Amino acid sequence: MHIRAPGPLAKVRFTETEMPFRAPLSDIRFILGKVVPLAPVAETELFAEATADLAEAVLGEAAKLCDEVLAPVNRAGDMTSARLENGVVRTSPGFAEAYRAIAEGGWVAVSAPVASGGMGLPQALNMAIHDMMSGACLSLQLNPLLTQGQIEALDHHASDDIKALYLPKLISGDWSGTMNLTEPQAGSDVGALRTKAEPNGDGTYTITGQKIFISWGDSDITKNVCHLVLARLPGAVEGTKGISLFLVPKLLPDDDGQPGARNGVRVVSLEHKLGLHGSPTCVMEYDGATGWLIGEENRGMAAMFTMMNNARLGVAMQGIGVAEAACQMAVEFAQDRRQMGVIADHPDVRRMLATMRAEVFAARSIALACAVAGDMATATGDRDWAARAAFLTPIAKSYGTQTGMDVSEMAMQVHGGMGYIEETGVAQFYRDVRVTAIYEGTNGIQAMDLVGRKLSDDGEAAYRLLEEIETGAEVARVTLPDLAEDVWAAAETLRESTEWMVTQEMPDRCAGAAPYLSAFALVLGAHYHLRAALAEGGTGARANLARFHIRRLLPQYTAHLTAARDGANGVMALSPEALAS
Amino acid sequence: MHIRAPGPLAKVRFTETEMPFRAPLSDIRFILGKVVPLAPVAETELFAEATADLAEAVLGEAAKLCDEVLAPVNRAGDMTSARLENGVVRTSPGFAEAYRAIAEGGWVAVSAPVASGGMGLPQALNMAIHDMMSGACLSLQLNPLLTQGQIEALDHHASDDIKALYLPKLISGDWSGTMNLTEPQAGSDVGALRTKAEPNGDGTYTITGQKIFISWGDSDITKNVCHLVLARLPGAVEGTKGISLFLVPKLLPDDDGQPGARNGVRVVSLEHKLGLHGSPTCVMEYDGATGWLIGEENRGMAAMFTMMNNARLGVAMQGIGVAEAACQMAVEFAQDRRQMGVIADHPDVRRMLATMRAEVFAARSIALACAVAGDMATATGDRDWAARAAFLTPIAKSYGTQTGMDVSEMAMQVHGGMGYIEETGVAQFYRDVRVTAIYEGTNGIQAMDLVGRKLSDDGEAAYRLLEEIETGAEVARVTLPDLAEDVWAAAETLRESTEWMVTQEMPDRCAGAAPYLSAFALVLGAHYHLRAALAEGGTGARANLARFHIRRLLPQYTAHLTAARDGANGVMALSPEALAS
Repeated sequence: MHIRAPGPLAKVRFTETEMPFRAPLSDIRFILGKVVPLAPVAETELFAEATADLAEAVLGEAAKLCDEVLAPVNRAGDMTSARLENGVVRTSPGFAEAYRAIAEGGWVAVSAPVASGGMGLPQALNMAIHDMMSGACLSLQLNPLLTQGQIEALDHHASDDIKALYLPKLISGDWSGTMNLTEPQAGSDVGALRTKAEPNGDGTYTITGQKIFISWGDSDITKNVCHLVLARLPGAVEGTKGISLFLVPKLLPDDDGQPGARNGVRVVSLEHKLGLHGSPTCVMEYDGATGWLIGEENRGMAAMFTMMNNARLGVAMQGIGVAEAACQMAVEFAQDRRQMGVIADHPDVRRMLATMRAEVFAARSIALACAVAGDMATATGDRDWAARAAFLTPIAKSYGTQTGMDVSEMAMQVHGGMGYIEETGVAQFYRDVRVTAIYEGTNGIQAMDLVGRKLSDDGEAAYRLLEEIETGAEVARVTLPDLAEDVWAAAETLRESTEWMVTQEMPDRCAGAAPYLSAFALVLGAHYHLRAALAEGGTGARANLARFHIRRLLPQYTAHLTAARDGANGVMALSPEALAS
Repeated sequence: MHIRAPGPLAKVRFTETEMPFRAPLSDIRFILGKVVPLAPVAETELFAEATADLAEAVLGEAAKLCDEVLAPVNRAGDMTSARLENGVVRTSPGFAEAYRAIAEGGWVAVSAPVASGGMGLPQALNMAIHDMMSGACLSLQLNPLLTQGQIEALDHHASDDIKALYLPKLISGDWSGTMNLTEPQAGSDVGALRTKAEPNGDGTYTITGQKIFISWGDSDITKNVCHLVLARLPGAVEGTKGISLFLVPKLLPDDDGQPGARNGVRVVSLEHKLGLHGSPTCVMEYDGATGWLIGEENRGMAAMFTMMNNARLGVAMQGIGVAEAACQMAVEFAQDRRQMGVIADHPDVRRMLATMRAEVFAARSIALACAVAGDMATATGDRDWAARAAFLTPIAKSYGTQTGMDVSEMAMQVHGGMGYIEETGVAQFYRDVRVTAIYEGTNGIQAMDLVGRKLSDDGEAAYRLLEEIETGAEVARVTLPDLAEDVWAAAETLRESTEWMVTQEMPDRCAGAAPYLSAFALVLGAHYHLRAALAEGGTGARANLARFHIRRLLPQYTAHLTAARDGANGVMALSPEALAS
């Protein structure tokens, strides 16, 4: 037995720093142009500056940054983990310079409030940039994504003084931000957290407790690190209703607003993770640290939820970006590698490449549709747009990250034995992307959010989306009758399952939540593929890809919906003891 | 953003050496007793010794070895890779002792020929033991699996002198064996290899060339390492018909048959792999090494194929064994971990656990059915049994290893953030098992073997299997009418797709090979689940699991078969250039 290697030795082909990556500019351009158009967003008053020309320029510049600055440090981040030295996190080689390019290029500021120095551009552009940055270097992209979440939270909930002091520094990228929710006993159940906040009587609070899994909890690439920390005030009720949000900077700002004295917070240790080695994952100790209340007392969860949609969407982009990079690597390898002819010409290899590309397109379209809906909601205050963004968020997050896992698994498979060798690089994608299905709410939590909170409008948002899909299919009937019929029938079946779902009790919904989400993602993906095909007249590469998706991948929806409607009894009849062996 | 950890810190729960694992004795016992019975094998003259009592004793002893000796070294193998020191491979801590327990316990000898010191027991028992050993320590299990392959090849093709000299040493585990096929340009396309063999005129040959991806190509845990090397004789035709097989020991046996002078073969380097760190993967340099021809000149591929079925089945057991271990770890974690109640009681978590257990059972039953068929073929010479074993082999290999990947992915998901931390241990399963879908013929190669060679009997072996499934479903109609109907209908649809498949040209078959294989595995899995349910009277835990599999997982077969029958045109219309971005 041996590893059947379909390649020359990995180390021959790739050096340790060379990671070929081209930001998926043409796909993003096409999707924001023809599939989930950005144009209506630019027609709003709020986003009037986001013209097609500006979007083009911004995306083009971002692509350059990704190809030329971020992608080249990705391998180094994997091979030389961030490390803790004398209480300070030292980042991977090249990360400081690459981060400086992000900050100085204004890439933290894309969607940040104009009043505080941001560019105020739509999240659809910001998320497209996160897609590109994630494919280039996931570990580093996570840093500005977190800072942007903090900017959003402070902008909505902080006092004017706090905003004036912190926002410009965060938006410029001089300082970075983190989110501190998790404690050993409080993961998905945030309400179980125990970190304490005691009022000092001067408007500040003393924060004490331990937080774990804090991404970029410290680093040497920004001048300060600002922590948003969930904690309990004295006498707070148990559960999520007794949680407040505090801002705790690593270095206390002095009178000039410059980083001053050390605060009572330190990094205890870094986690040794499967991947994402360039991103320091910290255990944080708060020992009498000084913090400032953000938002109202005991309303910390609400403040966190403000930024949840965009944070989850940002993680969707992570999955999609890594999938893009893995897909590119696999296609390139398959075009070069000869085993009884070029392997890209073997039907089963071509099938894998096509599956990867079709899924990346579907996931990207869903995620950008979610971003566009969010921008429309922000710009117009329209509740339907807001409901759509909320509905699409768990689908985008779960399907985007599942696509990241599936595509990087397939990309490794295309590489054969060489894929298993770390120097080839595809293993890094496989390892890095795995966490995206876990953090920011596991994909199981996303599915429960979908069938619980997001269907709590009796399915209204879902039905509006299905309406759009069916209308789209009817339009497509003229040009692509067979594909249109398949999409229409799928939407109809999904509608029936949605009607069933909204009448069920929560255990039955939850037992079918994950397959229901998968089915919805498949049908949405087919819908956007169909739109793409129509946009190019029903022929050519995009129509071929749409045909592949609709004929080969979409049919899985029936099995998913069968499982979705099976209820909880069959699942719960299987006791953990019986499942143990 | 942060990792939502559903657990106390990994390092708190597991020490570096503690890996809870219980060999799946009761499941294996049940399957070999009631689902794919070993009894008919024990009724043959050849395997008359394999009585139920003996099987029970052997499996019980193997389970003890796995739980007490192998599982405890698994983490050390991951954390301290095998390494190359001054040309010698130093194995991971504890591996030498654990290997000694394997060798001294006679576990290399289970199915080896009695005439040479083996136990001559059925492969069904041997493979069940590999299942258990893989779950305990995959890196180490690979070593005896490879040696067994070499024993089989030599027993069938070597001269009596070679057999007398080598077989006892290999069977006792004093010496180990490797397979040397792959070269940088020759992976799945073995026929492209260039290693040369020149006859020396004295019955020996001089071997020169480089081989890559050689598992256990060297180590310090056996007294000698014997390589089976594919090479070309002078003037050999191109392709697989010009390949011969040679035995090349690391140390040339002296006149007493003891390891003597160094042969001209050395380890150039070890690969840095995603997982399986305890198994040294070597680049081997043959520089005028002395070898002995095994079998006839230019018939090396045929000799290799002799052992291919069992080697592939051994890899199936690897996937299944790791899936078992990952499943156990996830169930245990889910029973302990509290987040709004014990997480095992959350329907979506229970769904994941049930999926894992249902797939492990299906994969294990398919693989053991394959082994039993092979034993019946060996014992009776019956061509139908041989055809069944050959047909089931690619299904067992591909589905078993896919199950290994899927289950370890889900096991990590159940662990949430903790699963991403290396100390928890589930990440090792995820990394280790990934290679099983690649080596010993990628899963794509398996699928092509199925629709090509294994359907080249016009589907006869497939139809016989489908007949058995339908007959089983008819028997089950009395007790479990709904499940029986579902299985029967699935078999019928699969029959229609098989009828379609055998009439197609190869490109169309290959474009549908992977989904066809997936559908076959699902239907077979449902069949064995149904048998298991019936064996326990149609109620209880096994019936519940069967119901879960048939209602929730089996329905995917329709989508797979739709894809299987889509033909090559749709796939090949997507050019690699169009898929690149």
